[in-house]
Amino acid sequence: MTILRKIDVADMEDIAIGGAVLGTGGGGDPYVGKLMAQQAIRQYGPVSLMDVSELDDDALVVPVCMMGAPTVMTEKLPQGDELMNAFRALEKVMGRKIDAVLCGEAGGVNSTTPFVVAAASGLPLIDGDGMGRAFPELQMVTFTLSGVSATPMVLCDDKGNSLVLDTVSNAWTERLARAATIEMGGSALLAFYPMSGKVAKEAVVRGTLSLCAKVGETLRSARAAHADPVAALADLLGAQILFHGRIMDIERRTEGGFARGKATVSGVEEYRDQTLRLDFQNEFLIAEKDGTVLATTPDLITLVEADSGDPVTTDSLKYGQRLITLAWPCNPLWRTPEGIKLVGPRYFKYDRDYVPLGK
Amino acid sequence: MTILRKIDVADMEDIAIGGAVLGTGGGGDPYVGKLMAQQAIRQYGPVSLMDVSELDDDALVVPVCMMGAPTVMTEKLPQGDELMNAFRALEKVMGRKIDAVLCGEAGGVNSTTPFVVAAASGLPLIDGDGMGRAFPELQMVTFTLSGVSATPMVLCDDKGNSLVLDTVSNAWTERLARAATIEMGGSALLAFYPMSGKVAKEAVVRGTLSLCAKVGETLRSARAAHADPVAALADLLGAQILFHGRIMDIERRTEGGFARGKATVSGVEEYRDQTLRLDFQNEFLIAEKDGTVLATTPDLITLVEADSGDPVTTDSLKYGQRLITLAWPCNPLWRTPEGIKLVGPRYFKYDRDYVPLGK
Repeated sequence: MTILRKIDVADMEDIAIGGAVLGTGGGGDPYVGKLMAQQAIRQYGPVSLMDVSELDDDALVVPVCMMGAPTVMTEKLPQGDELMNAFRALEKVMGRKIDAVLCGEAGGVNSTTPFVVAAASGLPLIDGDGMGRAFPELQMVTFTLSGVSATPMVLCDDKGNSLVLDTVSNAWTERLARAATIEMGGSALLAFYPMSGKVAKEAVVRGTLSLCAKVGETLRSARAAHADPVAALADLLGAQILFHGRIMDIERRTEGGFARGKATVSGVEEYRDQTLRLDFQNEFLIAEKDGTVLATTPDLITLVEADSGDPVTTDSLKYGQRLITLAWPCNPLWRTPEGIKLVGPRYFKYDRDYVPLGK
Repeated sequence: MTILRKIDVADMEDIAIGGAVLGTGGGGDPYVGKLMAQQAIRQYGPVSLMDVSELDDDALVVPVCMMGAPTVMTEKLPQGDELMNAFRALEKVMGRKIDAVLCGEAGGVNSTTPFVVAAASGLPLIDGDGMGRAFPELQMVTFTLSGVSATPMVLCDDKGNSLVLDTVSNAWTERLARAATIEMGGSALLAFYPMSGKVAKEAVVRGTLSLCAKVGETLRSARAAHADPVAALADLLGAQILFHGRIMDIERRTEGGFARGKATVSGVEEYRDQTLRLDFQNEFLIAEKDGTVLATTPDLITLVEADSGDPVTTDSLKYGQRLITLAWPCNPLWRTPEGIKLVGPRYFKYDRDYVPLGK
């Protein structure tokens, strides 16, 4: 087994920043997950990041993640061992040892949570995930497109309750896990989508954890060199700068466990007299300039502070912030008809078709 | 093993009537459960009813039941094999064969559902249950008073979804199972409270399924003999006649998955010029005559049609019905401080103490 690199305490700073950028405004703030991962690495040692191609075809790979409302996940900290409880319980259900840890969602808080389990278990962590970004529901992973069942799945809370789910579809997994998570107080820890190494090679969005680290490193280096961090970031991601402006209006409501809303941005500099409207539902999903759709989910839309390049989440948008809107193409797995059906604008109840973002 | 009696298709008629009487107005109409049990007995043969004292101390006994809103349970029929799925899945979780089936709740629909599993599995059914009546929540069983954990528990729906729960308390089992049941469409099938024969001997309310059969038989015989069915029923149960009157007013609301409300009954004959007020929450919980509390939960309060003695559920109360209110003492297990805490008036948010019904 060849290790891509060892991830140590300091590396988690970069990865958490990268997770927030791939989080496209949602997925929960990686701050808490970073602290958990750093503590686990201090206790158990660095995490070995491994390319998915290194897996044996018959290896057992299991993604772990945190589920719940981002606001709750930040305030109601896990005790620390719930993720390991879920992981070990799933191992027991599967009746065999798990060979590697996988990241379900490389955007937001879940870009860091798998490091906790990889450190504590001493297992390698696959460099990749099931989204290449953040999405709000459990079935919204490339694993679903590859026909992987989300169950058997184990869901644990901070009190010591646990559930093993076995469902007829990944959409049903989402429904039942969501109901349990809400009852558990708004957040829970999961181990799910157990899959073979063979399937993982097809289903995983590759390289996304390395990319997270690279994002953090790029922003840090650019700032140290007094270069433009946003330009450096856009260059790394292959992102377009869609807009530059100030937040003029924000409309937010909590509906069905989602933070839904719209933000209106008034252009500055070369965007003066132009208006960008952003629709979000945890994540930024649609960017529309003066009536023209510029980008839609599943392509990635992220807002960063104009000067520092620091990513801004949908729940921290404030009147007057000067932000740059970046957008870049999603992984090709999402651009299939099945992918668009699972995570395109219409799934989120917007009356719009997917408009693929060009180069 | 000595069998008390064999329960055949025709016996289920009496048992269902008895289940409605012990249902104290709630627990769901046993009609659907009766049909399911009769079909299972036709297919697999009669059910052997066994006294709990016949169990080996190290036998494994498992109660099964249906969970959900009574109205939904009646309209959304189980496909038939979900109960067996839950039962067999729990057997797998326990890693050993189950030796006998137990009834969780002898009142309402769950007085009949265990017959389905007993018939299909060929296992004996214990003559008894965990309530001696109906109650709305999973933790409200004498098993809880004996320190039996509700989990591991298996919960199945009609679509093929299943959950294995492992919780820190029986109150948490109720919360998580309730959330899942609501998401599953309002009804689910459970196998839970796995216990040893030794524990069952202490924890079970004995003889309640025989009593159900006897109730049905008593009403049937009295009517055939042109005797007074209500008097015969009261005599069998050791019940007091609290009141005789007509329903004058009903107030109903659905709150937190419960059918809550009040009924006002205006007296006839010797109760002329008197008024009875009944508080219910699925089951009848408090009977109060002209400001004086006559009976409260956990003692049993049941309304029957004055002429036929047929039990009336809280959801079928109608203006003008002429009904007799019966009340009789609950099993002594409920009259302990722990019992009153679990199912007394204050648990149901009534500002009243338990008033034990005299002889």
